[in-house]
Amino acid sequence: MAKQNKLGCFFSPKSVAVVGASREPRKIGHVIFRNFLEGKYSGKLFPVNPNAKSLFGVRCYRNVRDIKQGIDLAVITIPAKTVPKALEDCGKKKVPAVIIISSGFKEIGNMELENRLKTIARKYDIRILGTNCIGVYDPYSGVDTFFLPPYKLERPGKGDIAFISQSGALGSVVLDWMSMKEYKISKFISYGNATDIDESDLMEFLVRDSKTKAICAYFEGVNDGRKLVEIAKKHSKKKPIIAIKGGATSEGIAAVSSHTGSLAGEARIYSAAFEQSGIIEAGTLEEVFDFARVLATQPVPKGDKVQIITNGGGFGILTTDWIVKSGLSLADMTAKSKGIIRKACPPYASVKNPIDLTGDATTERYAIALKAVLDDPNVDMIALIILFQIPTLTADVVDVVAELARARKKPIVVIAAGGRYTEVLKKSLERNRVPCFSYPEKAASALSALYNYSKGDRP
Amino acid sequence: MAKQNKLGCFFSPKSVAVVGASREPRKIGHVIFRNFLEGKYSGKLFPVNPNAKSLFGVRCYRNVRDIKQGIDLAVITIPAKTVPKALEDCGKKKVPAVIIISSGFKEIGNMELENRLKTIARKYDIRILGTNCIGVYDPYSGVDTFFLPPYKLERPGKGDIAFISQSGALGSVVLDWMSMKEYKISKFISYGNATDIDESDLMEFLVRDSKTKAICAYFEGVNDGRKLVEIAKKHSKKKPIIAIKGGATSEGIAAVSSHTGSLAGEARIYSAAFEQSGIIEAGTLEEVFDFARVLATQPVPKGDKVQIITNGGGFGILTTDWIVKSGLSLADMTAKSKGIIRKACPPYASVKNPIDLTGDATTERYAIALKAVLDDPNVDMIALIILFQIPTLTADVVDVVAELARARKKPIVVIAAGGRYTEVLKKSLERNRVPCFSYPEKAASALSALYNYSKGDRP
Repeated sequence: MAKQNKLGCFFSPKSVAVVGASREPRKIGHVIFRNFLEGKYSGKLFPVNPNAKSLFGVRCYRNVRDIKQGIDLAVITIPAKTVPKALEDCGKKKVPAVIIISSGFKEIGNMELENRLKTIARKYDIRILGTNCIGVYDPYSGVDTFFLPPYKLERPGKGDIAFISQSGALGSVVLDWMSMKEYKISKFISYGNATDIDESDLMEFLVRDSKTKAICAYFEGVNDGRKLVEIAKKHSKKKPIIAIKGGATSEGIAAVSSHTGSLAGEARIYSAAFEQSGIIEAGTLEEVFDFARVLATQPVPKGDKVQIITNGGGFGILTTDWIVKSGLSLADMTAKSKGIIRKACPPYASVKNPIDLTGDATTERYAIALKAVLDDPNVDMIALIILFQIPTLTADVVDVVAELARARKKPIVVIAAGGRYTEVLKKSLERNRVPCFSYPEKAASALSALYNYSKGDRP
Repeated sequence: MAKQNKLGCFFSPKSVAVVGASREPRKIGHVIFRNFLEGKYSGKLFPVNPNAKSLFGVRCYRNVRDIKQGIDLAVITIPAKTVPKALEDCGKKKVPAVIIISSGFKEIGNMELENRLKTIARKYDIRILGTNCIGVYDPYSGVDTFFLPPYKLERPGKGDIAFISQSGALGSVVLDWMSMKEYKISKFISYGNATDIDESDLMEFLVRDSKTKAICAYFEGVNDGRKLVEIAKKHSKKKPIIAIKGGATSEGIAAVSSHTGSLAGEARIYSAAFEQSGIIEAGTLEEVFDFARVLATQPVPKGDKVQIITNGGGFGILTTDWIVKSGLSLADMTAKSKGIIRKACPPYASVKNPIDLTGDATTERYAIALKAVLDDPNVDMIALIILFQIPTLTADVVDVVAELARARKKPIVVIAAGGRYTEVLKKSLERNRVPCFSYPEKAASALSALYNYSKGDRP
């Protein structure tokens, strides 16, 4: 099997063995086995544990080699010192892909044990994810090696944003946060010590993954900087890659070395490498996903000119400030657009930039204004502020925006602050691939990231 | 009645007249009357409408002067041209405080009508809030002049943060957002055209208000800059005032002039005036309330040294980066503290800054570490990262943190990203006056604002 094909086995295995599956609820092997058994995974499942005959009604095997059928993926959860033997068994069984959840290797300085795994992997041509990781979550196939119960840590639904995180804990709590926000993902991968598979391998795989439209990454250190730059350079224009680097200050770098023992390297070296290779650098974790949601869903803008439409003056002003501060510019509509909007609005409405449809704006008024600016050659992108709470505005404004955005003629982002009523409407827009933000600064910097990413694509 | 005493009538009136109360559900006077009737307001209530005998079983009056009892507050919702007559009636009735919701005055250039109101107010010594505003929301007294139904726009509960907003729409949707976050407030005031009462009057009132511990403000322009600077200078050290200015760029300033016709003035002039008068300037609306939650609840730090405690390495690193980027410094614990924490933790825990209690941290471990750093003379502030999702950590960590924070020995902020389970625990901490954040950058800049605000207070 080709190296990159083997990576597919981590996400869409037809058969999975859980080495260390257990009846004991506090054991990692218990939680992971039950994720496969009770979750969305629909392939074959084989618990491996020499001390059990069956687990939850499923026949249990003493050794992975005792299983008659072929195994696409083995998940190893047993103590570090017993891992080499289990990996060797997987090799003999010709398992192409192994996730090693177990810790106690490089991260505690045990290089000897870590190197033994590398030797075994090379000998049997096994691809390893881990060691010392939480593995994979794939909402499409149901692969879920998190050892945290869903009541404490929710899993996001099926989407098109992939997320790679060196740190499993950080990645998993971010997924939990994403679930609450109803942000969707294509795949999540934590690669821990990168004993074999590293960030560059994953990036190369995800670039080719048809379910993934944007790739997000949290790095602390990078195994092989040259490899990463090369791969990103080759692919970043095809699919946006957004990254954040932990350890941006010398104090942060010191903290990295306590955490994973990675060589963090100076932030400016990373920033330069990111820029050189077309990786979009985010300033915060939230920004990573703000950028990804816009880059995964919105078309390439023709230029940097943003038209703001609002039904609240204050938010129009703050958005104007942030569009300018983000390095974008304000569109100047054609006289034709102004005429169309002017005709649809009362005299006290402001038909400039921002277009202020005012506090008695209706869905109809939004429809006319949005249509006009979508057709306007002077407008490249649209920041659409909707205060859904305003009495004259009905909830069907969501249908109108979703419908007009569907043609993906120009990038549209929505800004809407509010409570539960507003959140329901925003989530409906998000499901229709219209990215929504509570506050202007986030929308503006995401539009700016989109513009900067796509600059090179324009003639 | 003294001028400032009259301001009290806007928030705690014993009797309220709604001029323009109506049976027609789409009328503003209908919604406001029902807010008083069906909400938490428990004083006397008098609808005024010449065309009705009674409204929802309450006797209706033709004119405010027909009411026998004294009226503390009148809310006027009738069309602009009929407002002077109604205000004159309020004057004759000796109503001390009048909210004029109605628009159609200065904001559309009708200075003549606006000036007539000023003259009447002076003649009868009436204090006016408005015109062209959404008025007041006070969770303690139940005064609620918002004309938006609660299912669309929720109201926050009783707290100690006051919020003044020139823009009613902006202010009200932010309150809706605050409700969802369970941020609490003491009072909300939108003052619209500032026909009489302006931002400085409100600030002076709120400084003396025992329910308010921090004052937040959104300005577009300021009526009388000198007055604001003087009042803020006098009071800002007693109670933190946090402001954001709409119109920070020349493009934003142009948008302000379309919105309220205020003279916005250059951002740097405002920034200088804010700094000179001790007003804390926030960069974003979210930051306004991040700062307020920390400044209203946390004690004055002795210095800028922050100790980070975490159970997730990645978040520890990002927090380190942001503490440094925010201009604060990392604490260096005493050997005694290190010894205490070292003894309570497994050997792979890191007892530096950040303290990494690791992925198997327990409530017990948090208790020991937090207690040690609270007692440590080298630590001024604490950034406490809690990944609640970690299997070994039980929910009672919330009780431990709340208990230790209660003594208000040192500022503590919590950083915890996650979904619904985590949000429940964070909201419990917030109720216990421990400010919580999802991501490090926000916690760090709020601690920085607290430190900078209190710098002057230290010997």
